[in-house]
Amino acid sequence: MRQWVVTAPGGAQHLKLEEASVPTPGPHEILVRVGAVSLNYRDIDVIAGGHGVSLPFPYTPGSDLAGVVAATGSSVTRFREGDDVLNTFWAGWLDGDWPSHARVIGGALPGVLAQYVVLHEDWAVHAPRTLDAVAASTLPCAGVTAWFALIEQGALHAGQTVVVQGTGGVALFGLQLARAHGAQVIVTSSSDEKLRRVRELGATHGIDRTTDPDWDRVVRELTQGRGADHIFELAGGDNLGASLRALRQGGRISLIGLLDQPNMTLPSIPSFLTRPVIQGIGVGHRRAFEALVRAVDVVGIKPVVDEVYAFDALPQAVAHLERGAFGKLVVKVGA
Amino acid sequence: MRQWVVTAPGGAQHLKLEEASVPTPGPHEILVRVGAVSLNYRDIDVIAGGHGVSLPFPYTPGSDLAGVVAATGSSVTRFREGDDVLNTFWAGWLDGDWPSHARVIGGALPGVLAQYVVLHEDWAVHAPRTLDAVAASTLPCAGVTAWFALIEQGALHAGQTVVVQGTGGVALFGLQLARAHGAQVIVTSSSDEKLRRVRELGATHGIDRTTDPDWDRVVRELTQGRGADHIFELAGGDNLGASLRALRQGGRISLIGLLDQPNMTLPSIPSFLTRPVIQGIGVGHRRAFEALVRAVDVVGIKPVVDEVYAFDALPQAVAHLERGAFGKLVVKVGA
Amino acid sequence: MRQWVVTAPGGAQHLKLEEASVPTPGPHEILVRVGAVSLNYRDIDVIAGGHGVSLPFPYTPGSDLAGVVAATGSSVTRFREGDDVLNTFWAGWLDGDWPSHARVIGGALPGVLAQYVVLHEDWAVHAPRTLDAVAASTLPCAGVTAWFALIEQGALHAGQTVVVQGTGGVALFGLQLARAHGAQVIVTSSSDEKLRRVRELGATHGIDRTTDPDWDRVVRELTQGRGADHIFELAGGDNLGASLRALRQGGRISLIGLLDQPNMTLPSIPSFLTRPVIQGIGVGHRRAFEALVRAVDVVGIKPVVDEVYAFDALPQAVAHLERGAFGKLVVKVGA
Amino acid sequence: MRQWVVTAPGGAQHLKLEEASVPTPGPHEILVRVGAVSLNYRDIDVIAGGHGVSLPFPYTPGSDLAGVVAATGSSVTRFREGDDVLNTFWAGWLDGDWPSHARVIGGALPGVLAQYVVLHEDWAVHAPRTLDAVAASTLPCAGVTAWFALIEQGALHAGQTVVVQGTGGVALFGLQLARAHGAQVIVTSSSDEKLRRVRELGATHGIDRTTDPDWDRVVRELTQGRGADHIFELAGGDNLGASLRALRQGGRISLIGLLDQPNMTLPSIPSFLTRPVIQGIGVGHRRAFEALVRAVDVVGIKPVVDEVYAFDALPQAVAHLERGAFGKLVVKVGA
Repeated sequence: MRQWVVTAPGGAQHLKLEEASVPTPGPHEILVRVGAVSLNYRDIDVIAGGHGVSLPFPYTPGSDLAGVVAATGSSVTRFREGDDVLNTFWAGWLDGDWPSHARVIGGALPGVLAQYVVLHEDWAVHAPRTLDAVAASTLPCAGVTAWFALIEQGALHAGQTVVVQGTGGVALFGLQLARAHGAQVIVTSSSDEKLRRVRELGATHGIDRTTDPDWDRVVRELTQGRGADHIFELAGGDNLGASLRALRQGGRISLIGLLDQPNMTLPSIPSFLTRPVIQGIGVGHRRAFEALVRAVDVVGIKPVVDEVYAFDALPQAVAHLERGAFGKLVVKVGA
Repeated sequence: MRQWVVTAPGGAQHLKLEEASVPTPGPHEILVRVGAVSLNYRDIDVIAGGHGVSLPFPYTPGSDLAGVVAATGSSVTRFREGDDVLNTFWAGWLDGDWPSHARVIGGALPGVLAQYVVLHEDWAVHAPRTLDAVAASTLPCAGVTAWFALIEQGALHAGQTVVVQGTGGVALFGLQLARAHGAQVIVTSSSDEKLRRVRELGATHGIDRTTDPDWDRVVRELTQGRGADHIFELAGGDNLGASLRALRQGGRISLIGLLDQPNMTLPSIPSFLTRPVIQGIGVGHRRAFEALVRAVDVVGIKPVVDEVYAFDALPQAVAHLERGAFGKLVVKVGA
Repeated sequence: MRQWVVTAPGGAQHLKLEEASVPTPGPHEILVRVGAVSLNYRDIDVIAGGHGVSLPFPYTPGSDLAGVVAATGSSVTRFREGDDVLNTFWAGWLDGDWPSHARVIGGALPGVLAQYVVLHEDWAVHAPRTLDAVAASTLPCAGVTAWFALIEQGALHAGQTVVVQGTGGVALFGLQLARAHGAQVIVTSSSDEKLRRVRELGATHGIDRTTDPDWDRVVRELTQGRGADHIFELAGGDNLGASLRALRQGGRISLIGLLDQPNMTLPSIPSFLTRPVIQGIGVGHRRAFEALVRAVDVVGIKPVVDEVYAFDALPQAVAHLERGAFGKLVVKVGA
Repeated sequence: MRQWVVTAPGGAQHLKLEEASVPTPGPHEILVRVGAVSLNYRDIDVIAGGHGVSLPFPYTPGSDLAGVVAATGSSVTRFREGDDVLNTFWAGWLDGDWPSHARVIGGALPGVLAQYVVLHEDWAVHAPRTLDAVAASTLPCAGVTAWFALIEQGALHAGQTVVVQGTGGVALFGLQLARAHGAQVIVTSSSDEKLRRVRELGATHGIDRTTDPDWDRVVRELTQGRGADHIFELAGGDNLGASLRALRQGGRISLIGLLDQPNMTLPSIPSFLTRPVIQGIGVGHRRAFEALVRAVDVVGIKPVVDEVYAFDALPQAVAHLERGAFGKLVVKVGA
C-alpha cells in the first residue's frame, strides 16, 4: 500500500508518498481501507512538524478518515468486515470528562493519510448511511467540534441566534447544525462572494467585515438589541471583546481550536455585566460523535466540501488549505 | 361586550353568553381585545366546575387567548396599544422554579372566553409575527407544555427519537417541535387515518395501537434496539410500563397534564435497569413561552387547528373537544 | 488460595469454601490480594442463583472488594504493586452514559469473595487514604449509589432537605453524604433504637413509621410546608405516592436498587402538580466513584459497618444480611 | 430619621448625614427599620459618583441591609411586621435569567444607608434565624455572589478544590461555602498574617504570593497535578493566565465583580487545551439568596466581619474599605 509521510521538519516540501506493507490488526483492532481523508488547519502545523507532534520522522499526518473495515482482530465486537467507519479525533475519549491518556490521531499518534490504517475498535464509529466517504471524512474533527460546542455543551434550540466567524470547516458545520436545530445564523466574512454562498446554505444574515468592521453592532441590530445566544470565537485577540458586545445576557462563547492570535483580550466590565459563559472546545468525545452521525442521517446534512483532491495531490491540497478554504478540503484515497 | 360564563356545576348546558361592560385596566394591566381562544381538555372539567376551580358562579372559562392590546395602564412598560399578545397559562410563573403564588388563568383566576380581558402586563407575551390570532391562540397551554418538556427540560437535539402518544394538541406540538429540532418522531394512535395525517406533518413513523398493541416492541425495532430518547406519556395506567420498555438507557419520560387514569404503574426492575428520568410537566414559565414564540417565527411552525368555531358556537366546540380532536380547537372571538 | 463458590441454586446452604490456584493477570489486568468484601442485599439473590446471574455453577459471589495490588500485567499503567484499590461495581462503565457492554462484577461476571482476584485495570480505583480495607470495601456499590443519586444526578447543596427511608447501606451513605454537603437529613425507620443511632450519625430528624405511618405529613411539617428536596425511594409500592406528597415542587426522587415490591403506584395528579423528577439509579460510573473517594478523604467520612465477619463466616454474614443490617456488613478476607 | 447622602461628585468628603422624614410604604412595599448595612468595594465608586449611578445628587449609597419590617403596604403578602429581612442586591431579578429591567439598590436605585428604607416586597428575603443584623447584612452582595458562583452555577461538591484569591468579602464567603460543601480550599494572599487567619477559618492551604509568585504551580502540586476545580478570579490582567494554568481539565473560573484591571489576557492555547468554563458573575437572583439563607441556618455559617462601625462613623468605614478589609465591614444603624 501507499502512505504519505513527513520526512523532516519544514513543511509540505518534506511530504513523501511511500510504499509500505499493509498492517495487521491486533486482537482489539480493525484494519480500515481508507476511502477519504479530510484536512484541518492544524495539519499545516503537523506537516511542518510543529503541532506538538512528538513522533519520530518519518510519520504519517492526517486526522480524519472515512473507510471500510477490511479485517477485524479476534476480540473485536463493535465492527464487522465491510462496515463503513470513521475514526475519532481523540484516541481514548469515549464519554464524559476528557481523560489525560487520550491522544490525537495525526498528532501524538500516527495519522491516517494512508491506504490502510489500523485502529483500536474503540477509536472508530459507524459512518452515516447517507454520506459517501468524501463527505463523511469531514466529520471527525470539524463536525464534532461544531456539534460539541453547539449541542453537547450549548444545548442549542430553535429560535436562538448563532454567530459564526468566517467560512472554514468548523464555521460551516456550525451554520448547518444550527439550522438543523431551527436556530438563525449570522456569518461574518470579509468576502462578499462567500457571504452569498453561506446564504445559499441557509445563513439568515451575512456581515461583511470589510464594510462593517463593527460587526457586533450589526449583530445587536439584527437581534433587535437582544444579542446573539452563541458565538463561535474563531479569531481571538481583540475580537473576543467584540464577541462579548455582540452577546446576549448569559450567552455563550465557544473558543475554538487554533486561534489566529496567541492571546485574547477579555474586558473586565462586560465580562461582569453580560454574565457570559466562555468555554474552550477541544473537539469532543465519541458519544457526541455518534449523536452527530445520527443527526446527519435523520436531518440529511450534507457537509460542505470545497474541493476534492486525488491521493497523490496532497501537496496541492495543503497549498489550498494554506490559502483558506470554504468549508472542507478532502483527499480521496481508495486502494 | 359579550363573555361566556358558567352559571352552575354540571357541564356545558350551564354555559351562558352574557353581556358585560368592558373592564378598565389598572396601572400595571393591559386591556386585550380578544381575537381567538383555543380549548384544552382541562376546559371540560373547568366548565363542569370540577377542575379545582374555586371561583364563585358565574365565572368565565378558557385559558388561552390571542388578542390585541386595546389600552394600557399608566405604569405598563412591556406593551403598547396595538401589540399582538398572548396570555401566559400561569399568572405569576416568569422563570426558574414555579412559585407557590402562581395561579391558572381559567382556573383559580377568571378565564378568557370574552371579547375583552384585562391582564397584568407580566401575564402576557408578544405574539409571533408569523401567526394569525387563531393559530397563535394554541400556544399558551399546549405549545408551552410540549416546548417545556422537550426543550427546556429535555434539551432535545437532532437525531434523537421522540414518541408521542395520540394526536391531541400537546402530542402534535411535540411532533412539530421535535421535527423542528431535527429529531425523528414516532406517533402512536388507534386510528389509521390520523396516522396518515401525522405522516403528512412530518412524523417519521406511526404505530397503530389497534394492530400493534405492544407498541413498545415496535419502537425498539424502529430504533434498531436502542429505544426512544424521549416519550410523552399521555395515557397513564399500565401504559407507563410500556413507555419504560420503549425507552433507551437514561432516556426521559414526560408525564403530561391530565392522564386518563388516576394512577400509573411503575415496575421496579425496569425503573432500576433503564435509569429513566420521569418528570411531571405542568405547562411552563414565561421565559420558555417567549423562547417558543421566537422558535415559531424562525422555523415557521404552523400549529395544527382541527376546527375553528364562532364565538357563539362554544358549546359545539366543547362537544367536539369531548369527542376528541386532531390537534387544537379554536373559538374565534373578535369584537 | 481460598474462595467462596455457589455450587447449586437454592441459597446459602450451597455456599462452599474451596481451594483454587492464584490467577495470573493478563497484560491489562491487576492481581488483587483481597482485604475485605462488603455485602449487598442483591448478594442474597446472587447466592440463591436468582439475580440474573448467568454464570455456570460453581461461581464466586460478591461485588465489593478492597485490597492491595499484588501484581500487574505488562501493559498496566493505572496501578503499581502495593497500591490500595477498590473494584468498580460495573465492569466497563467509566463515565457518561451507561454502555450496553458493561457487566456487573459478582453478577454476569465472577465475584470477589476470594483471597485473590484478577481485574482489568479499568475496573478499579485507588482506595481512599483515610480508610482501612474493611471500611473502604463498603464504597463500590452502596457508597457510589448514594453519591450518584445525591451528587452526580442531584447536585445537592447546603440547606436542602434529604429524606432516606430505612437504615440500610445506601440509606446511611445518603445520610452521611448529605450531611457532608451541609444538607439536613430526615430518616424514616420503624425502630426507635435505629433512629437514636442515626441521630448520632448526624440525622437532623427521625420519623418512626410505627407511630407516624403518614411520614410524608411529618416531612412537610419539618420543612415548614415546603417539602423535601430529594427523597431516596427504597420501599416501592404505595410508598412512592407518599414520597410524592412529601416532596417539594420540582424536587427529586431517586428509585434505588431492588425495591421490596415489584411495582410502584404513581398517582397522576400529584405527578403533574408537583413536577417531580423521578430517576432510576443503578449504582454509577467510575468517574463518580473517584470523586466519592476524594470526598471521603477530604471530609473524613467513616462508613457505617454494622458487623465484621471472618472469611469463613460468610454464611453467618449472609444470615445477618437477611435479617437486615444497620449500614453495611463486611467479610474480612486477608491472605 | 437620619440618612447618609452623597452631595456632590468626588468621594467620601461629600458624604453628609442628614435628617429626613420616615417614608411611607406603598401597597406592595414594606418599611424596614435598618439594623446594619455592610459595605462593598463598589460603594467606593458609588460614593465617588462613578459607578454608573445615574441618581441626581444628593443620593443615599449602600446596597446591603439587614433590618426589621416596621410596616407593610396594604397588598403585601410576603412579610409581616416584625419580620427580620434582608434586601436583594438586584431589584427585580427573582429567578432564572437576569431581566433587563432589574436595577441595583445602591446603584441605579437609592441605597440603604438610612435608618428607614422602603422596599418593594419582592426585593427582600427573610433573614437567617441564626445571625444577628450585623452578620446578616453581609449576605446580599458578597454572600450571594460567592453562592451563585460556587453552587448555583458551579454545582460544587465534596472533595473538590476551590481557589480563592485574596481575603475580601467574596473570597471569604467562597472559603466558608466551599468548606460547608466538603471541598478543600486554597487561598492566595500576599499577607502571612491573613493566611494564618484563613487557616483558622478552615482553609486547607494558603499560598503567599510574595514568596510564591507562581501560585498556579503550587496549586498543581497541592492537587497532585490535577489542578483546581473552581477558581475565583478576583485580580484580572495577566492573573487569568495563571488561573488557567492552575485549573483542572474542564474546570471552572468565575470572573467576579470589579476586577483590579480593565482587561484580562486569555492565552489561546491553554483555553483550547484545558476546556475551561469561564463565567462572569454579577451577584445573583432572589431564589439563590433564599437557598443561601437556608444553608446559613442549617450549616451554622458565621460571616467574617472585620470591623463594625457606628452609623455616624461611615467615613471611617469607607477609609477602612479603601485600605482593604479581611472579610466584611459593617455599619451598625439602629433607629
